[in-house]
Amino acid sequence: MSNPSASVTTPPPTMTMRPLDLIRRKRDGGELSSDEIQFLVRAYTNDEIPDYQMAAWLMAVLIRGMTGPELSALTGAMLHSGEVLDLSDIPGAKIDKHSTGGVGDKTSLIIAPVVAAAGVAVPMISGRGLGHTGGTLDKLQSIPGFNINLSLSEFRRVLKACGCGLIGQTAEIAPADKKLYALRDVTATVESPNLICASIMSKKLAEGIDGLVLDVKTGSGAFMKSEKDSVHLAELMVETGERMGKKMVALITDMDQPLGLKVGNALEVEECIEAMKGGGPGDLLEVSIELSAWMFFLAHRSPSVDQGRQNRAATPV
Amino acid sequence: MSNPSASVTTPPPTMTMRPLDLIRRKRDGGELSSDEIQFLVRAYTNDEIPDYQMAAWLMAVLIRGMTGPELSALTGAMLHSGEVLDLSDIPGAKIDKHSTGGVGDKTSLIIAPVVAAAGVAVPMISGRGLGHTGGTLDKLQSIPGFNINLSLSEFRRVLKACGCGLIGQTAEIAPADKKLYALRDVTATVESPNLICASIMSKKLAEGIDGLVLDVKTGSGAFMKSEKDSVHLAELMVETGERMGKKMVALITDMDQPLGLKVGNALEVEECIEAMKGGGPGDLLEVSIELSAWMFFLAHRSPSVDQGRQNRAATPV
Repeated sequence: MSNPSASVTTPPPTMTMRPLDLIRRKRDGGELSSDEIQFLVRAYTNDEIPDYQMAAWLMAVLIRGMTGPELSALTGAMLHSGEVLDLSDIPGAKIDKHSTGGVGDKTSLIIAPVVAAAGVAVPMISGRGLGHTGGTLDKLQSIPGFNINLSLSEFRRVLKACGCGLIGQTAEIAPADKKLYALRDVTATVESPNLICASIMSKKLAEGIDGLVLDVKTGSGAFMKSEKDSVHLAELMVETGERMGKKMVALITDMDQPLGLKVGNALEVEECIEAMKGGGPGDLLEVSIELSAWMFFLAHRSPSVDQGRQNRAATPV
Repeated sequence: MSNPSASVTTPPPTMTMRPLDLIRRKRDGGELSSDEIQFLVRAYTNDEIPDYQMAAWLMAVLIRGMTGPELSALTGAMLHSGEVLDLSDIPGAKIDKHSTGGVGDKTSLIIAPVVAAAGVAVPMISGRGLGHTGGTLDKLQSIPGFNINLSLSEFRRVLKACGCGLIGQTAEIAPADKKLYALRDVTATVESPNLICASIMSKKLAEGIDGLVLDVKTGSGAFMKSEKDSVHLAELMVETGERMGKKMVALITDMDQPLGLKVGNALEVEECIEAMKGGGPGDLLEVSIELSAWMFFLAHRSPSVDQGRQNRAATPV
């Protein structure tokens, strides 16, 4: 790489804000405006701000934190860096579930079809395994012939036909997050609740959902080891989603040990099928039913969460 | 620039430490060992650590600070990234003066010849103007024919012949500082007392000096606006120098207004000549005499600082 000073002394004429001023303000614990955050995200995504400046800003954000309005602006800027699905032609509420991940956490494979069977559209864009945790996409790919690489228009078609769709992140969804995450990964700036929140929420809100149920894992097998940290992250995500007009709820669930009895992609698919047939281990069922109940409730498919819990008896699975 | 993750997943086999671990520890307020800091500085200088990782580390250092041993290790690593002059063949103590800079601060041009005339060798490697402040090199270059670009061996020859030498930083001196400073300049990590200290001291210690008198400017025209910040920087530099076996003293001097009456390169040279002829404005004389007195004292040329102040009457200028 060339001398870093060379690429900054001649900024493009569109740059009315100076990245250096914004890094300095965050470094000193100040607040950035929505416009300033949008500028940073857009310019970085367009390769107009170099990695080293964004790395310094990310480290300042991790240490100094962000205000609520800053976090919403960051999430919004990352969201609108790509395509946002408009699912208004699909009747009823569109509700998704997101888990922060853990070993044996296979609930997406149970919840998506169960909730869809009760008439709630579930547009689920899932991720790969991260660190020591499994990923929904990896599990789905252990099913012979399962195609996770649908285009957004194919995804919309499947969602209309089946009530749920499970795919991987496409290049159109939140490209700013993709670029920022790659940088965070190599600069020790992954572990910021604000940056984690913006990363998750920018991708989830791109699904065109009306509501989101969060499963924030806590314990020795989770990314958030303490209940305090888990509650903090949950609060950030709920507040950010609500500020952007979404119905939000977060459950804090235990991840001191794997969920269910089976771990490994194909084995976990097997366990999900058992669960949907009425069997399966108690802890897996409990978490799946609880999350589904909240999705029914947010979708106005049940008058109370408790009613939502009973809904499973009425589903055709 | 390519995807940042690409350049880190295949570290060279010599890397036994992982930059990411060291960034993370400093981010969380922990302490790095001397070996770890040496590794970071050496690998960065050799282009084995990318700018974005060093930028994240520098921001963490700026916000979290450094312990005394960390700062000494950083200074030492930057110092030994280049050549360190060995002036042991020149008899007597070698003493330099360094000022943090301000408008009209022209004392180097007076002090170097005055102190040299009293038999103390003054090996002075000076800098350019920085921000709003002037630079000794810029002033020297307003003298027709003055050559500031001597090689280190020519510098040594002049120092032996004249008792003092004033040159600009050569490529051999602290190359790590050069690279780090360029990065700090574009990542809002200049204003860290620890990084300022390491930058100054690594260059000054490369001069092969036995002692150093620091002139830390304070006030509205200085980089350190408050006396508290000036004292803090002075303490860091004195402690770091002493930990590396040098005789150190720091004076905190006023920079609420320009020093002397003349500002501008050629005018300032003129004012220095007046001062050395016995004239010149009182504030300039006072600072120059005070700094020279401490240099005499550190060089054992006077039994007390007060005696040092009187020495000027005995000098042949």
